[in-house]
Amino acid sequence: MTFSVRAIGGFHLGGRMVELSGLPVRTARITQGGPPIEIDPNGRFAVEQMYVQYTLLSAPSFPYPVLMWHGGGQTGVTWEDTPDGRPGWQQRFLEAGFDVYCSDAVERGRASWAKYPEVFEGEPIFRSQQDAWRMFRFGPLDGFATRHEDRTYFANTEWPTYATDQYQKQVVARWAGHDAITQKAYDELVAKVGPCVIVSHSQSGAFSFQAAVNNPGMVRAVVSLEPSGPALADDAQVQTLSDAGTRHVVIWGDNFEGHERWALFRRLVADYGARISAAGGHWVNWDLPQMGIAGNSHFPMMDRNSDLVANLVQHWIKDNVQ
Amino acid sequence: MTFSVRAIGGFHLGGRMVELSGLPVRTARITQGGPPIEIDPNGRFAVEQMYVQYTLLSAPSFPYPVLMWHGGGQTGVTWEDTPDGRPGWQQRFLEAGFDVYCSDAVERGRASWAKYPEVFEGEPIFRSQQDAWRMFRFGPLDGFATRHEDRTYFANTEWPTYATDQYQKQVVARWAGHDAITQKAYDELVAKVGPCVIVSHSQSGAFSFQAAVNNPGMVRAVVSLEPSGPALADDAQVQTLSDAGTRHVVIWGDNFEGHERWALFRRLVADYGARISAAGGHWVNWDLPQMGIAGNSHFPMMDRNSDLVANLVQHWIKDNVQ
Repeated sequence: MTFSVRAIGGFHLGGRMVELSGLPVRTARITQGGPPIEIDPNGRFAVEQMYVQYTLLSAPSFPYPVLMWHGGGQTGVTWEDTPDGRPGWQQRFLEAGFDVYCSDAVERGRASWAKYPEVFEGEPIFRSQQDAWRMFRFGPLDGFATRHEDRTYFANTEWPTYATDQYQKQVVARWAGHDAITQKAYDELVAKVGPCVIVSHSQSGAFSFQAAVNNPGMVRAVVSLEPSGPALADDAQVQTLSDAGTRHVVIWGDNFEGHERWALFRRLVADYGARISAAGGHWVNWDLPQMGIAGNSHFPMMDRNSDLVANLVQHWIKDNVQ
Repeated sequence: MTFSVRAIGGFHLGGRMVELSGLPVRTARITQGGPPIEIDPNGRFAVEQMYVQYTLLSAPSFPYPVLMWHGGGQTGVTWEDTPDGRPGWQQRFLEAGFDVYCSDAVERGRASWAKYPEVFEGEPIFRSQQDAWRMFRFGPLDGFATRHEDRTYFANTEWPTYATDQYQKQVVARWAGHDAITQKAYDELVAKVGPCVIVSHSQSGAFSFQAAVNNPGMVRAVVSLEPSGPALADDAQVQTLSDAGTRHVVIWGDNFEGHERWALFRRLVADYGARISAAGGHWVNWDLPQMGIAGNSHFPMMDRNSDLVANLVQHWIKDNVQ
């Protein structure tokens, strides 16, 4: 299905400039066929910015853009082609008439990362395939093996199993302790874009809930796929959020049995939803298996039924968000 | 100007899986509101892949897609919004009827980088604003200052001077010594896409010349903005390339006086062009100031006259590439 575009591009926002000094100079050859040159690691650097890509339609059928926010160790690639090569949610939402902004959070992908330990404290965290297996519910916890043919996937899984190695290519390094600078950049994005709907995933669930708290009324709805945490909002903020009419949909996949960490995340998120409901606000929980949609992994936007879940979300937004 | 799109997305290609073991386990809190968890740095990781984004038109007016390759310390953002917020070459080429692929080379941006020194040898190189000033010809070599107001730009510059700090946000880390793995991924991209035109910049100039050598006849034309090196081709390869009819346009901006490193790069590239011409192949040198277009920096696709240069390139491709 084709769609007409009026603008496409990307930009950076937020962050700050830092000046480094006193580091030793070294020598390296940085261009093919060129000479070795002196590399001076000192000087002025841009750090903590985020990256945002946008595709804007000639005639969107919905008044607000959708901001797609990725999870931990991921980038905006989350919303592009699925690991098995089908169209992703970015394309599907454009086809459905939504303007789309896909971002890379501070430190990830095109946002760029900063020298450590000079600027970023501590070491980056790279998620291994084994750790991905433990967190993302492709199969039983003991089902991982190096070779695809030797792995045990859930019998009902919608995950594109043969593309598990291909998925691993989109994983990027992350840091711990960057919640505040990341939230700041996300808030700046919401302020720049204006009234919007956020579709978040996993780690960015908490950032999207908090962005709705920090920008009352600006975030018309948050649709969060398997959020790994709530906003850190006090009761007055929850009341303001609820009064502003922000709508929340939280979506959960299948096969959570035995996942203690997910049990905790789900409880923390449910507690937050209960506070919003108690304040008269809007909160909906979509448990996909209870809705008759079985087998989703941690990545409903990449699973084989990604178009079905996209359709549900698109219709909900158009019917419920004003 | 609007354009109709049939597909938009992104994917990774190339690279390999590595297994790390024997590294110590540590503890960190990686999600807001979540508990501290054990971080095991061991396991299986995808490394050395590249990232490619594509926007394909419903009815392209040119038979081959344009592959846009960025320079050193950059990503595909090079071809998106200019630092002062105007539409970039990606949009302009789509408007002109070209399918466009924008990539992030191995180790950059959404391609992701690998743990060092365990996988990547040696340390990454971050380009400071001072080093950018020395290489990119925004102003005289001694014209840099911390504050924009205190900097001396070339009198005739087309660089969007007030956006120099904004430009710095798109700079990413790079490694030395990755030419072979980067070329391998670029060659894989050309093999996947098929007949194409490559628009390259700076460091990727050498990769684009080499891709034309490595894929005879597949790369119909290379348009290289300020390439920092030639292909490392022997005489037989230069003859095959020339016989295959690959067309080359090399584009140079202004204000090279006193830049020894650029003098060397220009000489190496000119020598390569002379070998192609001697073999009966096609090679054109566009010296923009000699063509009456003054003031371009190292980034003609970001300079204030970026639309003018884009137009020249688009018309040349449509008139000369078959």
